[in-house]
This record gives sequence, C-alpha cells and structure tokens, in this order.
Amino acid sequence: MPAEQNLNIVPFISVENMMDLVLSTGTETFLKELAAYVEEDFRRWDLFDKVARIASHSRDGVIELMPASDGALYAFKYVNGHPKNTKSGRQTVTAFGVLSDVDSGYPLLLSEMTILTALRTAATSAVAAKHLAPKGAKTMALIGNGAQSEFQALAFRSLLGIENLRLYDIDPAATERCRRNLSHLGLNITACRSAEEAVEGAQIITTATADKQNATILSDNMIGPGVHINAVGGDCPGKTELHRDILLRSSIFVEYPPQTRVEGEIQQLAPDHPVTELWKVITGQTTGRESDTQITLFDSVGFATEDFSALRYVYDKLNGSTRFEKLDLLADPDEPRDLFGMLLRRQAAAQNSPEMITA
Amino acid sequence: MPAEQNLNIVPFISVENMMDLVLSTGTETFLKELAAYVEEDFRRWDLFDKVARIASHSRDGVIELMPASDGALYAFKYVNGHPKNTKSGRQTVTAFGVLSDVDSGYPLLLSEMTILTALRTAATSAVAAKHLAPKGAKTMALIGNGAQSEFQALAFRSLLGIENLRLYDIDPAATERCRRNLSHLGLNITACRSAEEAVEGAQIITTATADKQNATILSDNMIGPGVHINAVGGDCPGKTELHRDILLRSSIFVEYPPQTRVEGEIQQLAPDHPVTELWKVITGQTTGRESDTQITLFDSVGFATEDFSALRYVYDKLNGSTRFEKLDLLADPDEPRDLFGMLLRRQAAAQNSPEMITA
Repeated sequence: MPAEQNLNIVPFISVENMMDLVLSTGTETFLKELAAYVEEDFRRWDLFDKVARIASHSRDGVIELMPASDGALYAFKYVNGHPKNTKSGRQTVTAFGVLSDVDSGYPLLLSEMTILTALRTAATSAVAAKHLAPKGAKTMALIGNGAQSEFQALAFRSLLGIENLRLYDIDPAATERCRRNLSHLGLNITACRSAEEAVEGAQIITTATADKQNATILSDNMIGPGVHINAVGGDCPGKTELHRDILLRSSIFVEYPPQTRVEGEIQQLAPDHPVTELWKVITGQTTGRESDTQITLFDSVGFATEDFSALRYVYDKLNGSTRFEKLDLLADPDEPRDLFGMLLRRQAAAQNSPEMITA
Repeated sequence: MPAEQNLNIVPFISVENMMDLVLSTGTETFLKELAAYVEEDFRRWDLFDKVARIASHSRDGVIELMPASDGALYAFKYVNGHPKNTKSGRQTVTAFGVLSDVDSGYPLLLSEMTILTALRTAATSAVAAKHLAPKGAKTMALIGNGAQSEFQALAFRSLLGIENLRLYDIDPAATERCRRNLSHLGLNITACRSAEEAVEGAQIITTATADKQNATILSDNMIGPGVHINAVGGDCPGKTELHRDILLRSSIFVEYPPQTRVEGEIQQLAPDHPVTELWKVITGQTTGRESDTQITLFDSVGFATEDFSALRYVYDKLNGSTRFEKLDLLADPDEPRDLFGMLLRRQAAAQNSPEMITA
C-alpha cells in the first residue's frame, strides 16, 4: 500500500510500470504469487458481491465492465474485445481497472490491465489445473499461439511443473514467435503442423484462439481419456472452440455459472447441463478429478473476482515502491461541501497568473 | 479531439485541468454548452444502449458504474455516494469516467468527473425545467445548499433567466457559504430560516439535500399550484425528499423509468404509477406543462446518458487544447499479438540500464 497521500491523488500503474513490476518480480514468481491471490479469493467466494459482466456489444466487438467486491475492497475492470483490431495495429483486448476502498468509495489504485489480464488469465488456468489435471502431467498442448500463449506456458510450468510444450496455430508465424519468445526458458518445445499432432501425448490441452465465431479447434476424436482441457478462448456469445461431443464426455468446471452459461463452451449445451463451480473444488466441498480416465474441462471465461485478485495483489506489491505515478483524479476542496468554492479559489489564484486558465 | 497520438496514450483530464477548462470557458457558458449536448442526446434517446446503473451497496455507501453507448461512442462513469465521508474531509460523491471508441473499444479520454458531474446534474435540471417550468419564472427556491447548490443556481440563471434565489439549509453555515460563493454574480439572494419561507413566491423549487434517508424536505401544504419542482437529492433506494402526497398531485417526469422507479421519489409510489419520460417531452412526442396550475415534478436521479453527454462535450472541447495529460494506459506491442514480446524487449533494454526494473 502506498504511503499516506493527499486525498486528491490516486496511484496509477502505467503499462511501463507494470512491465517493470513484473520483470523485477520475475514473470514466473509474479504468476505464482498472483495465483495464490486468485486461489485465496476463490476460497472466500461467499463473501463476494458477484455479477455477470455488463457487456455492450457492437458489430465488431464488445466493451465490458466487470465489478466485484468482498465488502472491504471493490474492483472493476474495463475490457474490450475487438478481433479486427490487429489489422490497425491495435490489441484485440485492452484493459484497465480500479481498486477502491468500500468504506469511503475512494479509488485506491488505477492500473493498466492489458498485461495484468493476460497474467491473471494464465494464473487462473493454472489454479484450476492444479486441482483438476492428472497428477504428474508434464506435457501440455497449446493450441492458439497468440497474446495469451506464453503466459499460459509459464503459469503451467511455474505452478504445475510442465516441461514439454506442443504448439499449434493456424498461423505458423504465431507458433514460431511463441517458440522463440519461450526459447531461453528451458521448456522442451515442439512446433506442430496440426491440432491433432499437438495433442499427441499431452495430459493437458490448452486452447486459446481468438476468432469470434463458433469454431471446432478440438474435435471429439482428438480427446483421449484422462486429459484435462483448459479452454480459454471461448469466452463470449457465439465464440466457442470445442466440439459439443467433447463437452458431453467431460466433467465441466466453471467460474460463475450465470456468466459461463452465456459466454463459455457450455453455451452449446442445455441451460441445466450439470457443471461444477471451481470454488467448490478449491475449498474441498466437491471432488475435482475422480479417476484417471475422467476428462476434466475448465470452461474458462474470466470472472471479475480474478481481476479483483489481480488488483489486490498489485496494490499490495506497491507497498514501499515508487513504481507508480500520482494522478490528480479526485476533487479535494478545502471544505468537503464547497465544490464550487474550489473553482472560485482557482479563479482567484489565476488572477495572479492569467496564463493558467487561458484556452 | 486531441491530435493524432501513440496508441498507448489516453488523454487524461485532471481535477486541475477540468477547473481550468471550466474557468477558461466561463462557468455559465460551460453549463449552457453542456446543456445543449445533454439535450441533443435526449433527442437521440432511441439510439442509446441503456442500462440502469450497476450498484454495489455497503453499510455506509454505494459504488456505481454507469455505462451508455450511442453505437459510435461508449462512456461509463464510476461514482460513489458516501454521506459520512465529509467527517473525514472527503467528498460524499466523487467520480471519474471514460469515453471510448466503439469500433476499436479503445478509450479516447479519462476524466475526473466530480466537478463534471456537479455541472451535468445542474445542466440536466435546467434542460428539464426549460421544458416544464412555468414561462417567465424568475424566482427559484434552493433547498439544500451543499456541493450541488451553486451549480443549480448558475444553470438556472444561464438557461432560464432566474434572477431571484431563496436559499435554505438545515445548516445555516451552508446557506451562508452558498450565498457568499454566489454574491458577485448578480443574483438577488435571500437566505431563509425555513423551507416554508424559501418556497414563498418561487415558481421553481429545487431540492438538493444529501442525507441518505427518507426525509420530508417538502410537505404537501408548501406546494402551491403551477410550480415546477426540481427534485435532485432523492437518488437512491431509501433516500427521498418529498412527501408522497406531493407526488400524487404532480405530473411526474423522469429520465429512465427502470432506474427512477428504484432510486427516485417515485419509489414511494406503486410501480405502475404513470410517469412521463423526459426525452419524449424534449422531442415533442408528449406535452410537458399543460396548464398554469399544473404541478410539474422532475424526479432527477442522474442517468448514464447525461455522463455520456458530458464526456462527449469535454472531449470535443479538447480539440486543439493542451489541457490534458498523456497516460501510458494501453499496451502497444510492436506486433499486436506479441504481448509477451513487449516484456522481453523491456527486459533486454533493462540489461543496459539495470536500475530501470530493480524493486
């Protein structure tokens, strides 16, 4: 937590500050620590004020607000999803978020969350896999080698000890970039020419593709008994990655059912198809994996509590750090009810230095 | 609109920049221009993607998100309401907001909105009164002389030509401060010792009190025929200002019924009590005031389209201005899908200047 500050100031973590925070911590350590916060908040699930994200859909994308509160802290994330953005050099997904104090309603932190969302998504996948994947899994297929892929690889190595990575993307350049980015990190990496080839020998299959359409990245015959599927890319209405038959053979685990029913792979199933909430597995209320032949599926869509956890973690890490800027975001009049008086005093001050407020 | 910029940068209007923008424009001119944007967007009501604000209630207050989009632009506001905050020198209400481009989902502007909300609330009240108040009204009672009061006074002078102001607050110091703040602006101001005294001779009665409770700021016998009531303070569940009998005698005009039914004065009435949507009056689809004896009531709670209008106005005013800061809010990798590569390149750069990323 930053030191005592003026009431008008809100600490801001820029993209550059976030990169430096991640790098000075070490990316894998950051993922591991972040995963601990994510897991801790899943354990406190009942405390949270939860709501499915509020989406504003347009022709080419969606803008969403994702709020969550545990009664002491409140967080929300702004995130967009625009697959066509890459054509203009923009990100498909960008995000930023705010952490606030519930007692006063005052923001404590504004942070970039494009990078932080990539990290929390990977950390959450690894937390789920820790509880669901077959024990001793060493090989992961990673299908879809875009912006999320390296973070998934590092989170699974850091939290589950994955050693072998089998990459596939419809764009070979994406696979090559992913392989190159991970090349000095000690993973055994195999670039594959098809999804079928990628899943060979993998105990964990991660799908993280970006097209906004009902796709069949995995077909039923590709999924052997006992694997864990970490389905990351299917995360909005009309966007799925798995063939429906896979879902029917799997034990399905989700974050927050009201949101996943609309956005996840299970939008392909009946609205009452049985699913298990991940927090129940984490708290031990329900069993996760029950046999060596069971197919477990984490139908990840990304939930607001995970962003809450990420902002809470980053806020705690700011303690004693100077790795933030100070934003003059909140009006702080000398007397709280005298907002207009602030304007008058600013005007009076400007009479001594008129250039202050000229257009 | 600011000039062409790097994709990572979002313009930010601080509290200081907002004050200077208001002062360099002139507060009354700012209110008049802002009111034109608010009115224009009410005319385009059908275009908007509308949703009641998303509230997170706690013991001492509420934190709300208020999104709206017209299909080309998207805006949301973060706003809290914590009446006890003034005891610790904080504002009851603080706010900030973001305007975004719907096509890309990228934010165009981050702005303080504590001051801007006070201005847009007053501007909206004046827009409603322009269509509802008796013609030629020169006298307004202003009950509740807190942070919103001076803005209401200026908006009603600027848009309706109000000349006489009758102030009352349970705290005489608030009335005195309001009177003093407005003393050089040419209004005839009368400080009153009761709400009854304040409403004498007033054609418009504005209530803007802050207590979070069902209060009776106005009782039925205080309301004569023909007046326009601008009820600003009753704006969340359990917080009302008017006696129910006044509502039963009034023609009631609201912003967005699904929100006002929960938050406005009409929470005291049956859920099917007839109300008229303000946009229908503004577009001429419905008559506003129909007679000299009719009591009109604008049951204002503040709706997301008004914040949209305020951000749109401020964004337009930034054109050619340097009155904003540049925030490094959005990750902008050299290649859009290579988010992880950004981290690697930052790390490589740091090997030349290691102090960059040490803790």
